[in-house]
Amino acid sequence: MDDMGWGDLGVLGQPSKETPNLDAMAAEGMLLPNFYTANPLCSPSRAALLTGRLPVRNGFYTTNAHARNAYTPQVIVGGISKDEILLPEMLKKKGYVSKIVGKWHLGHRPQYHPLKHGFDEWFGAPNCHVGPYNDTNEPNIPVYNNSEMIGRYYEEFKIDRRTGESNLTQIFLQEGLDFILRQNAAQRPFFLYWAPDATHTPVYASESFRGKSQRGRYGDAVMELDHSVGQILSLLKSLDIDNDTFVFFTSDNGAALVSGIAGGSNGPFLCGKETTFEGGMREPAIAWWPEHIKAGSVNFQLSNVMDLFTTSLALAGIDAPDDRILDGLDLTPVLLNNSDSLKNRAIYYYRGNEMMAVRLGQYKAHYWTWSNSWEQFKTGINFCPGQEVPGVTTHEQMNHTLQPLVFHLGRDPGEKYPVSVLSREYLDIMKELMPIVQKHQQTLIPAVPQLNMCDQSVMNWAPEGCEKLGKCLQPPKPNPWKCVWPH
Amino acid sequence: MDDMGWGDLGVLGQPSKETPNLDAMAAEGMLLPNFYTANPLCSPSRAALLTGRLPVRNGFYTTNAHARNAYTPQVIVGGISKDEILLPEMLKKKGYVSKIVGKWHLGHRPQYHPLKHGFDEWFGAPNCHVGPYNDTNEPNIPVYNNSEMIGRYYEEFKIDRRTGESNLTQIFLQEGLDFILRQNAAQRPFFLYWAPDATHTPVYASESFRGKSQRGRYGDAVMELDHSVGQILSLLKSLDIDNDTFVFFTSDNGAALVSGIAGGSNGPFLCGKETTFEGGMREPAIAWWPEHIKAGSVNFQLSNVMDLFTTSLALAGIDAPDDRILDGLDLTPVLLNNSDSLKNRAIYYYRGNEMMAVRLGQYKAHYWTWSNSWEQFKTGINFCPGQEVPGVTTHEQMNHTLQPLVFHLGRDPGEKYPVSVLSREYLDIMKELMPIVQKHQQTLIPAVPQLNMCDQSVMNWAPEGCEKLGKCLQPPKPNPWKCVWPH
Ligand SMILES: [Ca+2]
Ligand SMILES: [Ca+2]
Repeated sequence: MDDMGWGDLGVLGQPSKETPNLDAMAAEGMLLPNFYTANPLCSPSRAALLTGRLPVRNGFYTTNAHARNAYTPQVIVGGISKDEILLPEMLKKKGYVSKIVGKWHLGHRPQYHPLKHGFDEWFGAPNCHVGPYNDTNEPNIPVYNNSEMIGRYYEEFKIDRRTGESNLTQIFLQEGLDFILRQNAAQRPFFLYWAPDATHTPVYASESFRGKSQRGRYGDAVMELDHSVGQILSLLKSLDIDNDTFVFFTSDNGAALVSGIAGGSNGPFLCGKETTFEGGMREPAIAWWPEHIKAGSVNFQLSNVMDLFTTSLALAGIDAPDDRILDGLDLTPVLLNNSDSLKNRAIYYYRGNEMMAVRLGQYKAHYWTWSNSWEQFKTGINFCPGQEVPGVTTHEQMNHTLQPLVFHLGRDPGEKYPVSVLSREYLDIMKELMPIVQKHQQTLIPAVPQLNMCDQSVMNWAPEGCEKLGKCLQPPKPNPWKCVWPH
Repeated sequence: MDDMGWGDLGVLGQPSKETPNLDAMAAEGMLLPNFYTANPLCSPSRAALLTGRLPVRNGFYTTNAHARNAYTPQVIVGGISKDEILLPEMLKKKGYVSKIVGKWHLGHRPQYHPLKHGFDEWFGAPNCHVGPYNDTNEPNIPVYNNSEMIGRYYEEFKIDRRTGESNLTQIFLQEGLDFILRQNAAQRPFFLYWAPDATHTPVYASESFRGKSQRGRYGDAVMELDHSVGQILSLLKSLDIDNDTFVFFTSDNGAALVSGIAGGSNGPFLCGKETTFEGGMREPAIAWWPEHIKAGSVNFQLSNVMDLFTTSLALAGIDAPDDRILDGLDLTPVLLNNSDSLKNRAIYYYRGNEMMAVRLGQYKAHYWTWSNSWEQFKTGINFCPGQEVPGVTTHEQMNHTLQPLVFHLGRDPGEKYPVSVLSREYLDIMKELMPIVQKHQQTLIPAVPQLNMCDQSVMNWAPEGCEKLGKCLQPPKPNPWKCVWPH
């Protein structure tokens, strides 16, 4: 899911309980309350999911300024490098057919498209559904069916900014169901990356879900996505392939608290999207595979989206690439035997190429803290509305590298009460953590940053297929600049 | 439960998921996410539960200063008035035997004891388990078995302040199970008011639960209480009286965020105990009655502890008292038919005799806001740690009576984004709310306040039964004063 928060699921405490299907999925599967994304925003998180590698290793970061979040708006020049190996490329080795439905966000220029990186099918868009644009300064985002555009958001694919109505989730659902049906009929193994984006602003829902939740548009979108997940699981059951299909539900980053009531909930966690506090990176996560994953289980293993790469390969019986460092671990012992054998694994929280924090066991050490700049904050951009923890949710980048700020996330999931630096507990955890962090940093070879350069000429003016539709626009002359990433 | 927060249950989003038995209880019964207490602290909340009336009507409030929380420390002179009718007194009409196990908190002087107000049995203490005291300025709190003390906390009933170890919950559990067994054997209808206080500071757990949770002492206490609830429900099942026994789980006020990591969680809600924000008064609530209450149901009806008085009478087939105003409604349509027929009922949030806020449907209107005083706040007493909503979590009493501060709790459960006073929405809700509030205030006849006077001579120096134990202490001379209630 896109920008859905940990606290948006009924089973994770959303008071308006909009997710009966996801709650049932958890009751039939495994809940992972300590599951993380790799970055507190869309593009790097998705690149990490598909490569099994931290964004700093796969190139989905910027070095234009210190500790900055970067993504792929349509002015971005870069995208996923051809040197990266994506999950569908690997799965092909065992005959898996792969489809992405929804948002790609790994680069919109032709060489970066999903079909160039292992996917067999694509229905969706390369960028977020923001807009509408006027075609002069910026074109609307194209929607692709495989290698050709079939329309644009706000044109052929309606989103009503005033009412929040759009039937996109229904379209994405049908695309997903149809893919499953076809692969099942052909008895082919398949990988469906179902990536709808209804919970990313501008939040939308179709007519039959509008006004149905207690939470307004955001809740309506959650209800429609929940309903869709229910439909997908139902289809697997009715095709009698539920016992052969591993399904994982998660989100790409924490709820965008900056959007106020248009954003979701991070439950008891601090701040949201764009930050390396728990609200920015702890994700709702449910693993489902009847007869293989124990129904109703809860596993506290620290895990993350990159593990899904490694785990999927393990489940498919494919050796992981051995020519590069993977950050993902194989979670099969956790999922299939409910073990916690990976208990010494660390979780890294990055902003750009800066390691902001590390979690090991119940402890999280912040090496750097900030939410956003005073300049931004003063204009009303607040990543932690209603929350303020002195010295933690700072508006300048605070360097704690010599004496990290440590929280015990079991006792203090909201990151409010730092462990005293004078305590035995602090010394013990730092002694354990230091060599792990040192090793991580020493072996880290950053890739060429893909998110440094911007250029208006690379926008979606004339996507493949635009001629057939008569929807090609004239791009401006190339005029690249270093993208400005303010937070 | 005591000081347990909405967010402390797994099923309500506690990340450390310590409540498998309560989660199962919810799966077998009904979750009520919009259930409230009557006051954001112990004594008035408990008085409201047992009388079905707001504290301002039953006398459990103070007029010593404006909008103050008051309770029953052992210097309190007052207690539950003989003019109030308590639930066990009513249930006697149909032969119910009643027992309270745990904390009473409705007055510790002899005339206020449970056995003087309808209970047939009592095992527990009149006050909180704070201490230890030195017998000179203050005696330790006595533990009663029916009408006589059998020891004192920190003396015969150990609580280790250093380690947080105490076996009190185990004792309370055995008392509860034993009562059920005896009433079942005698085929008598029964009312068990099981009121353990392990989650009230100083938080405690017994040896077998210490260190078992990820949350430290507080989580250990939750695990032991959860285990105990599981034992009680198991006994009902094994006696085959589960289908004949209505069980309700809730807490008396929000988690005491003022206690930091020694307190619980209020999930996504604002502030905690002592406040009239959602974190202070929204409570975890599960109704359980196999074959009568639909398993796995979620009902959004606004309801509160006073409804339990009226509902219990209705279930027992006893007419409610008709000589006084009851604030509790009969929830049987909600519980038995999963209806929302009581949708026009309002929830009132009081501090002392001041109506601070009202909820109607999804809207909550604050007529007064404050968390605590600047003086207190500056000494580190913070009811909203890590949270700050400008103009809402104020440190002076802010009067909004002419233009209430309105929140939509569906879209904004955290009370961060006031509905614009210039909006149609604001006008609509205020138009609906004003006559309801006006009627409430016009028909409200405050009782004589019971929590105004304090006196050291009334403390538990020489409780009934102390002679037999040789544990009588000499009280000082009477010297009453007006209690100081700082918040
Ligand atoms: Ca996102
Ligand atoms: Ca309490």
